[in-house]
Amino acid sequence: MTTETICAAYYRGNKSFAVQQARATDPGPGEAAVRVAYCGICGTDMHVYHGNMDARVGLNRVIGHEMSGVVEAVGEGVDTVEPGQKVVVRPLDHCGECPACKRGHQHICQNLKFLGLDTDGAMQEIWTVPAHTLHILPDDLRMDHAALIEPVAVACHDVRLSGLQPGEDVVVIGGGPIGILVAMVARDAGGNVVISEVNPNRLAIAEKLGFDTINPIETDLVSTINARTGDKGADVVFEVSGTQPGVDAMTAVAATRARIVMVAIHAQKPQIDLFQFFWRELQLIGARVYEPEDYEKAIAVVASGGVDADVVITDVSPLADIQAAFEALDRSPTAMKSLIEVGPRS
Amino acid sequence: MTTETICAAYYRGNKSFAVQQARATDPGPGEAAVRVAYCGICGTDMHVYHGNMDARVGLNRVIGHEMSGVVEAVGEGVDTVEPGQKVVVRPLDHCGECPACKRGHQHICQNLKFLGLDTDGAMQEIWTVPAHTLHILPDDLRMDHAALIEPVAVACHDVRLSGLQPGEDVVVIGGGPIGILVAMVARDAGGNVVISEVNPNRLAIAEKLGFDTINPIETDLVSTINARTGDKGADVVFEVSGTQPGVDAMTAVAATRARIVMVAIHAQKPQIDLFQFFWRELQLIGARVYEPEDYEKAIAVVASGGVDADVVITDVSPLADIQAAFEALDRSPTAMKSLIEVGPRS
Repeated sequence: MTTETICAAYYRGNKSFAVQQARATDPGPGEAAVRVAYCGICGTDMHVYHGNMDARVGLNRVIGHEMSGVVEAVGEGVDTVEPGQKVVVRPLDHCGECPACKRGHQHICQNLKFLGLDTDGAMQEIWTVPAHTLHILPDDLRMDHAALIEPVAVACHDVRLSGLQPGEDVVVIGGGPIGILVAMVARDAGGNVVISEVNPNRLAIAEKLGFDTINPIETDLVSTINARTGDKGADVVFEVSGTQPGVDAMTAVAATRARIVMVAIHAQKPQIDLFQFFWRELQLIGARVYEPEDYEKAIAVVASGGVDADVVITDVSPLADIQAAFEALDRSPTAMKSLIEVGPRS
Repeated sequence: MTTETICAAYYRGNKSFAVQQARATDPGPGEAAVRVAYCGICGTDMHVYHGNMDARVGLNRVIGHEMSGVVEAVGEGVDTVEPGQKVVVRPLDHCGECPACKRGHQHICQNLKFLGLDTDGAMQEIWTVPAHTLHILPDDLRMDHAALIEPVAVACHDVRLSGLQPGEDVVVIGGGPIGILVAMVARDAGGNVVISEVNPNRLAIAEKLGFDTINPIETDLVSTINARTGDKGADVVFEVSGTQPGVDAMTAVAATRARIVMVAIHAQKPQIDLFQFFWRELQLIGARVYEPEDYEKAIAVVASGGVDADVVITDVSPLADIQAAFEALDRSPTAMKSLIEVGPRS
């Protein structure tokens, strides 16, 4: 493999990528080289594109982590995967030494390296990663669908931490790409899901996917949820909007002892109605990335059709067109998930 | 009993009480009449005294709910208690019909009546209550100590909902009467407890009770907790201060996946570092009043000396001096728990 020349897309700053030839990295001990099939564009990748993460990623970084691929080669001591197996990468590398790791919280390691941000990522034909990050896929899973497994694993983690039980009433606040996946996974787990969203294009997609929706600008969210639930409120709320109105709504729609899962990243510190937490014994549960069992669940959900992949994937572009793909996604009011086809179709 | 004349203290508004003769209420079906021994003055009672709850309680209300007493008589159909038994009242009457009650959350019933606020309370010699609110005490429990059971039950509820395990690191933010009881119950449950408090008088009491304390105005709370815990942070945090600095501290001192229990009543909506909830997968758990099992636990804790009652109870006044007792408590920088001796010492 040492001599193999590959294509890789480098983020160069100022909303630009350069697709260049590079040399594949041989897998060292404990590593595996993966021939990448597809790689989705994450919201985090859009933050990189906008220059918000230059200090972290630098200007010579291959990004991308929502991928699918096939094992090309393995390094010394790797016996958990073998060449030819279809895989996805769980792009988290932990230190194993910090208090979080020692408590079993490796996915939120205090020195966590996120592959594709802190190291080079999947927007290259061959991606070499620690072998412990690989999950093996069923042979018959479509590789474009498999590129959804990483964001679906986020949703599986959120739903698992919520403790959602079949038949419970769920409100998802925010119907963007992650909100829609959370809604689908919650529905797959037996929840009665309503999506609250203000963007008409996103509302249309949610309805196309069969969800009941509420536009809180047009309809009073709290009275509608109370009417649906016999004045009980929602058992589980996912806050995916990252907005102050979303934070106001999350406590207002909640039933007694409801679980509110904080999925969104709130860069500002919003005001929260702590009195309602006391009065109704609400719970707020922070949820970040995923653990191995969430990846296994996500593989099962995608493989079983629990996520409507053909609606969620709104476009696919070859690696050579990555620049145009980012520009189009940045402009599009209707795109949900854009994929980059990095390697040959499987 | 119908003809028995008793003394009762009526709240009359404008920081005043009138101690008057009244007639005892005969227990109706399902009720019990309790001869009150002691009744503590709660922070809520001080809110009544200050006129903040006039709309709710009116100006002809007997308040008080932190009590101990002896069953005097029972009404038709009551077979769970009998005259002569020492008891405490769990002062919550639920509707049984609302969604919260139907979900088993009777203690946070959507139409909850709090005895001693929404009905007459324990600052009278004979208090007639629904018999389902009674918990029977061990015969040898001191009745002044038993008047602490209601606030200790609040602390037991808070600690139970936190899921505290022996050996975990605990920070109690706010060392007032409830914070001190939470700290004592958490210590009794095996927690390594630190109290953060800014008031020197309260710090002195906490230290007298054997707690490690931090004054966050003088010492950096976060670096101190990190140094104590090997950079892990606190596994469990109780926010009892009701202040913005307390809310800032609760996320800053928390370990990954820490549980933060919201004990304080925040009338304002503070700003919260939701990013930390996401980043470290923190949990916020609202906790209000108590459930029957918390009362049973509180009885066991008080009976076993898990709460240092003789330090917590800082003064005792007869019912005739209730006005002076409220005035003194309002002025005192050092008082923790003031009791009113309503009936004969047991």
